[in-house]
Amino acid sequence: MEDETTGGGWDLLMATIGQVAEWVSAVSALDGDVVEVSSIEAAGPRSVVFAVDGETLGKALRSAAGVILAGRRLESVGSADERVIWVEDARYSFAVVAEKLRGRWFEAGVDASAVVADGVSMGEGTGVGPGAVIERGVVIGRDCWVGARVVVQAGTVIGDRVVVQAGAVLGSTGFGYARNGRTGEYRLFPQQGRLVIEDDVEIGANTTIDRGALGETRIGRGTKIDNLVHIAHNCVIGKNVILAAQTGISGSSVVEDGAILGGQVGIGEHATVGEGVILGGGAGVLSGKKMRGAGEVFWGRPARPLKEYLRDLARLRRGRVF
Amino acid sequence: MEDETTGGGWDLLMATIGQVAEWVSAVSALDGDVVEVSSIEAAGPRSVVFAVDGETLGKALRSAAGVILAGRRLESVGSADERVIWVEDARYSFAVVAEKLRGRWFEAGVDASAVVADGVSMGEGTGVGPGAVIERGVVIGRDCWVGARVVVQAGTVIGDRVVVQAGAVLGSTGFGYARNGRTGEYRLFPQQGRLVIEDDVEIGANTTIDRGALGETRIGRGTKIDNLVHIAHNCVIGKNVILAAQTGISGSSVVEDGAILGGQVGIGEHATVGEGVILGGGAGVLSGKKMRGAGEVFWGRPARPLKEYLRDLARLRRGRVF
Amino acid sequence: MEDETTGGGWDLLMATIGQVAEWVSAVSALDGDVVEVSSIEAAGPRSVVFAVDGETLGKALRSAAGVILAGRRLESVGSADERVIWVEDARYSFAVVAEKLRGRWFEAGVDASAVVADGVSMGEGTGVGPGAVIERGVVIGRDCWVGARVVVQAGTVIGDRVVVQAGAVLGSTGFGYARNGRTGEYRLFPQQGRLVIEDDVEIGANTTIDRGALGETRIGRGTKIDNLVHIAHNCVIGKNVILAAQTGISGSSVVEDGAILGGQVGIGEHATVGEGVILGGGAGVLSGKKMRGAGEVFWGRPARPLKEYLRDLARLRRGRVF
Repeated sequence: MEDETTGGGWDLLMATIGQVAEWVSAVSALDGDVVEVSSIEAAGPRSVVFAVDGETLGKALRSAAGVILAGRRLESVGSADERVIWVEDARYSFAVVAEKLRGRWFEAGVDASAVVADGVSMGEGTGVGPGAVIERGVVIGRDCWVGARVVVQAGTVIGDRVVVQAGAVLGSTGFGYARNGRTGEYRLFPQQGRLVIEDDVEIGANTTIDRGALGETRIGRGTKIDNLVHIAHNCVIGKNVILAAQTGISGSSVVEDGAILGGQVGIGEHATVGEGVILGGGAGVLSGKKMRGAGEVFWGRPARPLKEYLRDLARLRRGRVF
Repeated sequence: MEDETTGGGWDLLMATIGQVAEWVSAVSALDGDVVEVSSIEAAGPRSVVFAVDGETLGKALRSAAGVILAGRRLESVGSADERVIWVEDARYSFAVVAEKLRGRWFEAGVDASAVVADGVSMGEGTGVGPGAVIERGVVIGRDCWVGARVVVQAGTVIGDRVVVQAGAVLGSTGFGYARNGRTGEYRLFPQQGRLVIEDDVEIGANTTIDRGALGETRIGRGTKIDNLVHIAHNCVIGKNVILAAQTGISGSSVVEDGAILGGQVGIGEHATVGEGVILGGGAGVLSGKKMRGAGEVFWGRPARPLKEYLRDLARLRRGRVF
Repeated sequence: MEDETTGGGWDLLMATIGQVAEWVSAVSALDGDVVEVSSIEAAGPRSVVFAVDGETLGKALRSAAGVILAGRRLESVGSADERVIWVEDARYSFAVVAEKLRGRWFEAGVDASAVVADGVSMGEGTGVGPGAVIERGVVIGRDCWVGARVVVQAGTVIGDRVVVQAGAVLGSTGFGYARNGRTGEYRLFPQQGRLVIEDDVEIGANTTIDRGALGETRIGRGTKIDNLVHIAHNCVIGKNVILAAQTGISGSSVVEDGAILGGQVGIGEHATVGEGVILGGGAGVLSGKKMRGAGEVFWGRPARPLKEYLRDLARLRRGRVF
């Protein structure tokens, strides 16, 4: 394997087409090398592309791409073109190949401009970007990337292969106050808990996650969090959860495994978003509410099943009842 | 008093139970020391816990906690347990004790990696965290904490005991433009005013507050602002106001004393949120609108009294009118 | 011309009243100098103010202002006061004068605390603020300002006269994943494209803009973006677009020239906001949807023409149909 440098800022690896096929549990009779994944439009003879329907497969076949990953259900419309590798899920296989060709896209070690406090523990292969700040006692696992200007506050524990994008703040002080009934003044409720981020979590740019108040805030394994998301103290986010950009989750709420939250979703305090529940963009869940139903889609504020939401809109639109 | 170090990243102080009682204007016959506040579940003999209802009081009594702060209205269900200290508001008293035991949780002085420009004035006991940037002419009072990577732009004036969490930007250029009617191009309206932050204000991570355009933006004494909040140029936020996460307030709006804004609230330009008004999460106030009524709860977009909002939803739900 | 320093943190220039008139394509018979634009309330003899209606013109005439820019349509209510300079659009002219008097408000060159990687190209007159991070291969044009703690990631191309405010992250990894149908785990879809920012764009504090996945994300010439805005991978934002604070645009969406998006607007994936369309604060556009109509105002979630939105609200309010 050799290295090439891309405009994207990291080194791509070269691989034989045979290796590519092996990565996606397939075989290929073709010789030759590839160095990148690419869009069909930009593909050259050393590019890998993918096709999920007949139209894109047609385009891919007319392109210069060296390898075409295509969904097996397209085999009937078929092709004798040897560049095609049939796979179960072409988009997923494309992501697998991209990851392999991407190789290591960050350097291990702490950038000279980062500030790392005493008592920080960091696993092998972990990299810390320019201007990042890691406070005392933080524990970070292996092969993590802590991006530029990220702040990881004291008491945060991070697993392996976690990616934190630029500007995120992890372990900030939660927003909990006790009000003086007489003067109306607020006093900080203790925010002395910790934040635990499990393996394979990815966190977007300028996102903020508060530490627990007395207990902990926890982000489950494999969960992916977009930019500018806010997660409050004592939330428990399950495994393989998706939180799209600008979503906010109030204190002590639970989002269970496999849930998918669109952008700008708002969750009240002590609410539960059940396993596999899907919340459309901008949906709102009231404090204390429990949303249940794996694979069910909820929409609106307050969130209701998609069918109900559409019916409500239709009623308003028609201006009559039925 | 002695120091202990916690995972939370600061030193806790030790205090006698007598001192604790005194802090909450009570007395205790017990001897012994405490070092921390804690959840009931994690409490040990040197922990202080609190109970606001019969159930948590029962749990607290069965725990190993050294001191139990309990609401006086629970005295009837009572207990002869000497660990109980009866107070008016147990949660508030717990916050008072936590603050005392927390002691100074940051170091005074400017971190070596911070960038402080000429002509900056800073009061005694104020600390500036790693990577923070303080532009020229900024005035900061006593005992403030300016967190990691905070940016305080020129012309900002900050009072005493203000806490600014990591990544916040104070005094940014406001978003005001004049449009060229002929070309459709925008030209910045002058944003040369300043930002004033009064005493005891707390500001969340990655929050942004713009300077005034010609006049000033002002955040009143004791106001608490959560993460990722946006406050535009020339806003005047009163005293003891609560702004939960991801709330946005457009230019020249006023939020009066004691108002409480839930998460993801949006306020248009030149609007007024009256004294003590409560806006539920996700509520929206149109430009120019004035919301009035201390203690009244408004909900929805556009915000309306909670009762009205619920009636509107019920109508949609039933699909009939009455 | 001489320099004066303001509390705002930059040097103001002195200009003759004749020059000021010339800047706005007018003439003035007055002698004397001005040094600043100002509100009418704070105006002194060397201040320029503006008036857009009879009331503010009256106030301006009674003030000490040295120059009054007034809309030509007020000429009838008129004034013989020589301080008045009649212009087409007083607010716009005021912005023109402010920009001239402001002069250069940042220093060219890279602050010592910024981190600039290899292979970065930067045009003449461009300044990079404290703590900013510019990754390898980034191209930045002339007379740009890259504010404190901004991160510009590899593969980003920035035009001339672009202003990026503190804490913004440009070129972050997009939020695209392929799901393993069997295990439910997510794998990053390749995010190896680039971000292109054209001339005269201005970007607010702590805003995040993702690079393209395979292609590019593009922000058109003259577009102005407020604080805490999120723009996802592969979006194409046209020229002279306004995106107010906390607005979020999902992947692969298009916002055409001259569109105006209020605060907290949410746009789904693969949606189109047509040329000149106006979206009220908090409006939402569903994935795949195309909004059309230059100058038309849309409101609500999902966004509908203002008239329709108001009718829907009125129906709910009246509780009857018509």
